[in-house]
Amino acid sequence: MMTIEDMVTATNAPLANADFNRTIVQRGVDLADLACLPISPGWYGKVEEKRRVIKVQCYIMKDTINFYMRPIEGLTVLLDLDTQQVIQIIDEGKNIPIAKATNTEYRFSSTQKNTQKINLLKPISIEQPNGPSFTIENNHLVKWANWEFHLKPDPRAGMVISQVMVQDPDTGKMRNVMYKGFTSELFVPYMDPSDAWYFKTYMDAGEYGFGLQAMPLEPLNDCPRNAYYMDGVFVAADGTPYVRSNMVCVFESYAGDIGWRHAESPITGLPIREVRPKVTLVVRMAASVANYDYIVDWEFQTDGLIRAKVGLSGILMVKGSPYVNMNQVNQNEYLYGTLLSENIIGVIHDHYVTFHLDMDIDGPSNNSFVKVNLQKEMTSPGESPRKSYLKAVRNVAKTEKDSQIKLKLYDPSEFHVINSNKKSRVGNPTGYKVVPGGTAASLLDHGDPPQKRGAFTNNQIWVTPYNESEQWAAGLFVYQSQGDDTLAVWSDRDRPIENEDIVVWYTLGFHHIPCQEDFPIMPTVSSSFEIKPVNFFESNPILNIPPNSPKDLPICKAAASA
Amino acid sequence: MMTIEDMVTATNAPLANADFNRTIVQRGVDLADLACLPISPGWYGKVEEKRRVIKVQCYIMKDTINFYMRPIEGLTVLLDLDTQQVIQIIDEGKNIPIAKATNTEYRFSSTQKNTQKINLLKPISIEQPNGPSFTIENNHLVKWANWEFHLKPDPRAGMVISQVMVQDPDTGKMRNVMYKGFTSELFVPYMDPSDAWYFKTYMDAGEYGFGLQAMPLEPLNDCPRNAYYMDGVFVAADGTPYVRSNMVCVFESYAGDIGWRHAESPITGLPIREVRPKVTLVVRMAASVANYDYIVDWEFQTDGLIRAKVGLSGILMVKGSPYVNMNQVNQNEYLYGTLLSENIIGVIHDHYVTFHLDMDIDGPSNNSFVKVNLQKEMTSPGESPRKSYLKAVRNVAKTEKDSQIKLKLYDPSEFHVINSNKKSRVGNPTGYKVVPGGTAASLLDHGDPPQKRGAFTNNQIWVTPYNESEQWAAGLFVYQSQGDDTLAVWSDRDRPIENEDIVVWYTLGFHHIPCQEDFPIMPTVSSSFEIKPVNFFESNPILNIPPNSPKDLPICKAAASA
Repeated sequence: MMTIEDMVTATNAPLANADFNRTIVQRGVDLADLACLPISPGWYGKVEEKRRVIKVQCYIMKDTINFYMRPIEGLTVLLDLDTQQVIQIIDEGKNIPIAKATNTEYRFSSTQKNTQKINLLKPISIEQPNGPSFTIENNHLVKWANWEFHLKPDPRAGMVISQVMVQDPDTGKMRNVMYKGFTSELFVPYMDPSDAWYFKTYMDAGEYGFGLQAMPLEPLNDCPRNAYYMDGVFVAADGTPYVRSNMVCVFESYAGDIGWRHAESPITGLPIREVRPKVTLVVRMAASVANYDYIVDWEFQTDGLIRAKVGLSGILMVKGSPYVNMNQVNQNEYLYGTLLSENIIGVIHDHYVTFHLDMDIDGPSNNSFVKVNLQKEMTSPGESPRKSYLKAVRNVAKTEKDSQIKLKLYDPSEFHVINSNKKSRVGNPTGYKVVPGGTAASLLDHGDPPQKRGAFTNNQIWVTPYNESEQWAAGLFVYQSQGDDTLAVWSDRDRPIENEDIVVWYTLGFHHIPCQEDFPIMPTVSSSFEIKPVNFFESNPILNIPPNSPKDLPICKAAASA
Repeated sequence: MMTIEDMVTATNAPLANADFNRTIVQRGVDLADLACLPISPGWYGKVEEKRRVIKVQCYIMKDTINFYMRPIEGLTVLLDLDTQQVIQIIDEGKNIPIAKATNTEYRFSSTQKNTQKINLLKPISIEQPNGPSFTIENNHLVKWANWEFHLKPDPRAGMVISQVMVQDPDTGKMRNVMYKGFTSELFVPYMDPSDAWYFKTYMDAGEYGFGLQAMPLEPLNDCPRNAYYMDGVFVAADGTPYVRSNMVCVFESYAGDIGWRHAESPITGLPIREVRPKVTLVVRMAASVANYDYIVDWEFQTDGLIRAKVGLSGILMVKGSPYVNMNQVNQNEYLYGTLLSENIIGVIHDHYVTFHLDMDIDGPSNNSFVKVNLQKEMTSPGESPRKSYLKAVRNVAKTEKDSQIKLKLYDPSEFHVINSNKKSRVGNPTGYKVVPGGTAASLLDHGDPPQKRGAFTNNQIWVTPYNESEQWAAGLFVYQSQGDDTLAVWSDRDRPIENEDIVVWYTLGFHHIPCQEDFPIMPTVSSSFEIKPVNFFESNPILNIPPNSPKDLPICKAAASA
């Protein structure tokens, strides 16, 4: 990864170059108003890429803190990352005006005068006056309800969840579910092939450090009142340790949801209404990779389900434009995005977040990946008044290529990880399944340089045999990597994965066509997937949880200020 | 729909038949222990279907309230629904033992002795000591934050949301979003073509009444402490009105989530950390269509997003089996489901919930449906170091067939409803988009009788011109319908839909391969989709909401009992 020092140094380096300063001044910009960003260059096989290089682009911070909305379009400085030497200045787009600062501010200190325009909500809060139900031992061992796991802030992955175990309600024993789970890599290709944009294909973990960019969480807003905060300890470029305070939070959430329920209908008339509330444990961090904010949640349910959720907020990466209204745009001209405000285009891009899920269903060994495919089966003539039904067909993956999965709505499957040596009382293999949610697939050409580097997004699911050196989906060394050490390369070795210690890789994707609502700062967009018990327990593991009772709930009054 | 009286009468009718009673007694079952269910027969073109008929199957309520887990397998009574005359008794499966009652109980009154086995959670609650932020006028007009809509309990749809308007933060004016939204029909085909199962292809709204089956919600568990409850008023078969109390609840939810955020990264070093909490308004009901419980939520976000969520809980419809362990099952034998417990198979099935979304973007007229398709575009040689990018291509649907959408991960689109006469300041059409979440598609053969009746699931999205008579996706008369009056039939007329008052139909689907965790009662499984502003607002509509402040939060103490 780059170090923070690499990045900061790079953003200041262009100012030492007279040509750079001259073009800035020529554009009518005061050098003191510049805010520049270090942009990873990817890899395109050019001769100048044979050393460590970086690209720098700049914005204006005049009249707004939200400089991201005021790009100096078309100006790209190519730097030697080690020597800070300017290798090349691409100076285009001088005729593109710099967007005004109007409406770009988002800080409460500047916008609070506008709160009279809105119907303010009365205070609402998650309250636990008896304290949380979790403990954190030795600052890393989290115990909550039927769960136990290790939690670690990490400079590259952000957070690592490990040694995840769940209690069996029948035996009381803790059982292994996952050895390790983390965000292994991100891939964020922008969809504009022009000079100032084609290289924007970020890999936020391996290039920038997903954890290095995770800043302190804001109590009461990033996490609710009842949250516990954990610090990260990282290393500066010179080896000095430093503390990133409040980098991760842990809290119990209750949104009013239902764990399970049944009421008898008026058909039977039985006086039954049994309902259990759903309380979950959330582990969260938020990484600010320059403009974008990624909120990563690991959510644990008492029914054995683990949900990994990624929320996107923060600020768009936008492109300067001569246009102030779409009526100026010729019908045949394509803008590569959406005109968000005068002179600003939100460029279309994708986000992929690839999770490393080292599953250990009832231990590390004898795990297998099973695709349970639902296939349309036609009945034989005379067999039934029905002509068709769906038949579940189980296929155990023998080798890695059997587990390269492209999700298909019209060829649906469940994706199980089972322990082939362990069966339930009635003889089903114990397992967990990966349950995809809303997602997106990368459509870039497989021969395109960014997609070679991001080839770990060629499938949504892959399974590999455990290998200590295969932790990072884009390879150990990602910066200017050429795609020769990715998950796709490893998987194509087609190693045996049946009855092994296996790792599941799942990629969560978003296509993002920006809209005006994303300006000047984006409301959070989230997506998630789940890993979920399937014949792992003998029966519903939360059958015995009690309902909420009025006598247990807190007694609250309004704050003194109200 | 059937009336509740139709259903109750049908379940008692077989007892008047001597043959029926004889076979029950021969199976060793006491007639007093019977619990029978009324099962809609679908339509298969048989001669006996030329009158109103119903099928009845029975279970044993001995030693458990959860009779659903003790089926008398293979016994099906065909009744005349009007005369209660027994038309036919299919009496098979006499050699299939009735499963034991062991482990089937779920009521707290019976299971609370087991709570010592689990780590009980400390009380947790959503608290609003200053009261809710919404009002409900005239028992139907809900006003909250920037939203306003009508809410109505309905015997067929369950709940209807109508005249949904959101406030424009710039002008202060209320703007139309949706004229009406509701669950128009459900389709739940089971995947077993045998005599006792082939006809199980429920349409819960049009056959049973999704609202008629929505029982009173359980305060503190179905909805949190801060919920408001609304009654439904329905009509009995003889015309007498009756009240279904607490059928719908309305509450504000705060789960600890983030509305928007940005922290500056260590790269820029700016001391910025701005975060806003996400509070939502939830409208909920729970329908208990015999064994299954459907939790339907309409969730409103202050950023203009509406989420429709369906949760599945309750009890599986299971099949009796001679097997107690999978090791007894021949490798070539297919069980149509999962052995959940001794002598019980959870049969594979699908759930489809089709929503009627009568969108009115800035008014009823001049609305159009636009597919914004992301296509892989290859660059020309020499144009760019990039070989490919994704290009957004807009296609306005001219007629209904242009809007018959099968979702494809590798051919992705956004689905906009725009007002073609209204543009934003910078010239984008104002709109909302339908955002699919995790879902499933029906794979049954289009010529299969149930799929003809359920043809509204042949696509995930359809758009029709508004027509007062087209409210119910399976047709106005669903019971024993033949599929000649469904959404699919209407849509194939291929009427113009550009610049019209249009209705979007979205189908949320689940494939359900049961697992042991679903026994004896299922932990909730949820899925959702969203309708979301896209260039509807000039900018982020929640830019001006304030952060949480410690001085506003409630002061709480533990309950006296703790």
